Amino acid sequence: MRFLVAGALLACLPAQAQPVHSPEVAADRTVTFRLMAPAAHEVNLAGEFMKGSKPLEKNAQGLWSVTVGPLEPEIYNYNFTIDGVKTIDPNDPAVKTGSTPSTIQSILEVRADRPSFYDAQPVPHGEIRTHWYESKSLKTTRRLTVYTPPGYDHNAGTHYPVLYLFHGANADETAWTRLGHVNLILDNLLAVSKSKPFLVVMPFGYGVPPGSANPIAGGNTAAFGRDLLEDVIPFVESHYRAYTDRDHRAIAGLSMGGGQSLSIGLNHLELFSYVGGFSAGIRTAEFQQNYGAFVADPQKANQKLHLLWLGCGTDDSLFPASESLSKMLDDAKIKHIFKKSDGAHTWINWRRYLNEFAPLLF
Amino acid sequence: MRFLVAGALLACLPAQAQPVHSPEVAADRTVTFRLMAPAAHEVNLAGEFMKGSKPLEKNAQGLWSVTVGPLEPEIYNYNFTIDGVKTIDPNDPAVKTGSTPSTIQSILEVRADRPSFYDAQPVPHGEIRTHWYESKSLKTTRRLTVYTPPGYDHNAGTHYPVLYLFHGANADETAWTRLGHVNLILDNLLAVSKSKPFLVVMPFGYGVPPGSANPIAGGNTAAFGRDLLEDVIPFVESHYRAYTDRDHRAIAGLSMGGGQSLSIGLNHLELFSYVGGFSAGIRTAEFQQNYGAFVADPQKANQKLHLLWLGCGTDDSLFPASESLSKMLDDAKIKHIFKKSDGAHTWINWRRYLNEFAPLLF
Repeated sequence: MRFLVAGALLACLPAQAQPVHSPEVAADRTVTFRLMAPAAHEVNLAGEFMKGSKPLEKNAQGLWSVTVGPLEPEIYNYNFTIDGVKTIDPNDPAVKTGSTPSTIQSILEVRADRPSFYDAQPVPHGEIRTHWYESKSLKTTRRLTVYTPPGYDHNAGTHYPVLYLFHGANADETAWTRLGHVNLILDNLLAVSKSKPFLVVMPFGYGVPPGSANPIAGGNTAAFGRDLLEDVIPFVESHYRAYTDRDHRAIAGLSMGGGQSLSIGLNHLELFSYVGGFSAGIRTAEFQQNYGAFVADPQKANQKLHLLWLGCGTDDSLFPASESLSKMLDDAKIKHIFKKSDGAHTWINWRRYLNEFAPLLF
Repeated sequence: MRFLVAGALLACLPAQAQPVHSPEVAADRTVTFRLMAPAAHEVNLAGEFMKGSKPLEKNAQGLWSVTVGPLEPEIYNYNFTIDGVKTIDPNDPAVKTGSTPSTIQSILEVRADRPSFYDAQPVPHGEIRTHWYESKSLKTTRRLTVYTPPGYDHNAGTHYPVLYLFHGANADETAWTRLGHVNLILDNLLAVSKSKPFLVVMPFGYGVPPGSANPIAGGNTAAFGRDLLEDVIPFVESHYRAYTDRDHRAIAGLSMGGGQSLSIGLNHLELFSYVGGFSAGIRTAEFQQNYGAFVADPQKANQKLHLLWLGCGTDDSLFPASESLSKMLDDAKIKHIFKKSDGAHTWINWRRYLNEFAPLLF
């Protein structure tokens, strides 16, 4: 009997007989990555905690390993390349997934001595709700993720402002919760009264199939925009106690979703009064088309917009585009914040931008 | 500018220059798996659609491939073993994850001409809510997943029965929604009036750290049971419009969770009246300890239980344990259903069992 039970459970275990501990974070925050691969010729590590890649070294048993760091406490993505095949660390249960294979990576969490702004803390918690809705504009069933702040269920008389928050290319409507920790960041801000309570609505950002076209070119934004304006917003405002005026609506996104939030938000000042673009996926060649009408009327822009917030890391290859947009806004005398941060095109920055952006809303 | 933008997006793509399409489902439902790995010596495929494993063959460009099937429409887990390293298919965005690395696999979905019972269909949809709650019994912040049936938000006067539903070893509180499609199965049953509307509460099934002990031995069930009875049920009954009597409470689970639901449910007939064990992780050596008191009073059992449902696949190495439990119940003249199905220890069966079990509740 014992044998049969053990057989059933072991059937799920990887081929390696011995469990391999990877990644292992030591007390000094150095991190050791390991892989049992006696037949492999070359194993490399790449990750958001380093530039380029680093080879692992093989011991006599075929166990490859490398140690990096010490690393700053943070949540990092990384991957192995095993004899030319880029893949995850098969011994790490934390896997980043999305809507295309290019998003797949392993996740390393290096904890600080004290909880970080994105960690679960013993404070009142909001909820994450997942809806399946019929998109009339896109003629399909889609998923929608909504954060409700602590107490939402028990404050029957209270209405809430809404932040529409978009993910990047290759991701999906779960990215801001699973990778962005949006609920924990907002729970923690609320617990110290640094932010007002508001709903966060996170739709699926593809109006065309993921991978079918350049995701930051205009076609996808147009299709996604129809779903947002014709399906998502009406769904939210009929299901939640949401304010329905522009003063209580914000729109923001990262990468592809930053291009969407800027393009849709700045061209719909009748709907939105707070606009954010995090490491926005924007192209200077399309500036005139996307923002021409907006910058042509700076008086209206400054009067209508309570906040226009741009952020980008100087190591991000999209940095020059954000800088050019900021300069275009400066030239037109349109008030905005341009947060020029360290770092690259990573969730490290997007969590931090959200933590900085949220207290400025509503 | 274009170059910079392309650079940012390409940075996320795998090392292979050409996108590789894998798995590819043909019109005749044969499925081709591919992997670009010029340096590899041996690549094997294993999956729930076949016994054992099958080698891929390499062409002159280093592209490995193999075709299997035709396959029955279903959702299958599979993996590659590349030169002895068991890993995912890096070109498939659908990855099964959980609380330990042993759960990581790729997911293949073969669609039928018509939607399956577990597919999203254009019917009224329930919601999935994720809560973060402080478990006083386990002294930590934990997550809890809840399904609310269609219309829950708008039926302010209505109360609902509750099914407490548990995942298996190496999984987590998201498994029944992500892999089990619990919400879609129940939405579809409700749409044709085959089931009553009820809440489904899916807690995290580990009271000890995943991987730290035999998950189906008693220690984990005891710790998990405290969290369930002292924290989860009070949380649910104070947050939701749930009936709070035994006639409106069901408890069920799969594998490790099936052991938990049987052990907790059958020993708490004052709390539960419907009990289900799907491919239950149970050990005959513990039958007396776990069910001795229950089978000692068959009159009480038959009077109190509205349903005791066991299901297991004949290819499951846990089948003999379920069969032994059923025989023990027969010997004691305790009414129950024992569903002896085809198949093994897979989500294929667990989705089907739920679809059969749910209409018998409440």
